[in-house]
Amino acid sequence: MDNVLAANDAWAAENRRVLAQKHTIMFNIIGSPGSGKTTFLEKTIDLLKGRVSIGVIEGDLATTKDARRIQKKKIPVVQINTGTACHLDAHTVNSALQALYKKDRLIELVFVENIGNLVCPAEFDIGEHAKIAILSVTEGDDKIEKYPLLFSQAKAILISKIDLIRYTDFNVSGALRAYRRINPGKKSLLIDSLSGKGFPDWIEYLSFFLKKHSFRR
Amino acid sequence: MDNVLAANDAWAAENRRVLAQKHTIMFNIIGSPGSGKTTFLEKTIDLLKGRVSIGVIEGDLATTKDARRIQKKKIPVVQINTGTACHLDAHTVNSALQALYKKDRLIELVFVENIGNLVCPAEFDIGEHAKIAILSVTEGDDKIEKYPLLFSQAKAILISKIDLIRYTDFNVSGALRAYRRINPGKKSLLIDSLSGKGFPDWIEYLSFFLKKHSFRR
Repeated sequence: MDNVLAANDAWAAENRRVLAQKHTIMFNIIGSPGSGKTTFLEKTIDLLKGRVSIGVIEGDLATTKDARRIQKKKIPVVQINTGTACHLDAHTVNSALQALYKKDRLIELVFVENIGNLVCPAEFDIGEHAKIAILSVTEGDDKIEKYPLLFSQAKAILISKIDLIRYTDFNVSGALRAYRRINPGKKSLLIDSLSGKGFPDWIEYLSFFLKKHSFRR
Repeated sequence: MDNVLAANDAWAAENRRVLAQKHTIMFNIIGSPGSGKTTFLEKTIDLLKGRVSIGVIEGDLATTKDARRIQKKKIPVVQINTGTACHLDAHTVNSALQALYKKDRLIELVFVENIGNLVCPAEFDIGEHAKIAILSVTEGDDKIEKYPLLFSQAKAILISKIDLIRYTDFNVSGALRAYRRINPGKKSLLIDSLSGKGFPDWIEYLSFFLKKHSFRR
């Protein structure tokens, strides 16, 4: 396992080099199966289109369902099928980045939708600027304490499907307390990707993040 | 990875030997984080109590939240905390079984609640008699084709949180078609663990399973 992680870290460093050279910001989106990652990306792309050039890397064990959904937005997308692997690794993401950049395409922002899993995607650095954790209210508010590695690493937590909260016993203030306990000072947002609730704040967060990293270039 | 799986298979065989000797049937419950595995077990225990002696093995990376919920049912429960591992392995389950059997306790039925993950728990045989897959309608009907290994191995699929279906675009007949395509002839049930919907069929399936395996003893 240590060797696997060391090899991965070398590729993650290479990805950071490529991203810096191309002036691209990369987000690693991590959440359970069905937490709403793809719908969240669809909405985000709709709101950002024309303002920034976006590319998407879709991770799944099997099928190209998600890539086909993103393709409808007319932006570059690469599907990775991992077969039996429960996470994306930095080497595979490197190949996907090369595919996104082909023909010297300008890509300012890359969203990587990781495999639906709260465990191993948090263990494998892919060279991203930030991990974003998505947790849907239908999953329950105990997940933050049950999967501490992800939630301690995420630069922001998005509590999704907030419009369904009345049908669940999800306790928002309890969940945010747990999040702040393991990851103090980080951003949290309540969103619903169908109604668009919470997206103005998310886009503002994203714009701030992009601006901050642009100044550093 | 091959060595890891070979070592695991040896322990899985040992677990099968122990279970046969103790006349215990073991179910491996697999589903996403928040698919409703623990609530499903709580309801199942309520309905079976007094009819069969049950033990539970709870798998989580961190916390004893689920074991504490099961403990309220006054049945033997062992919590496994895997730390960073995204699945249970047969060796760990062996230790948990030994703990369940201590003081020569009679255990006829063991439910193992695996780590919330649709990938690796399907790859690691723990010596169970059957894997049961739980998929909640809030996760979406595309998950069966996206995680083919689990759904091709499961002896039954339980589509959970069915009372929430009106708030989702989950297509039950499409999902069951996909399931039958990769796993023909297997059982499927629609359940809601809060209202108890679908549980008479589940208990009947379980009783039939227990009887069938008793005849074989």
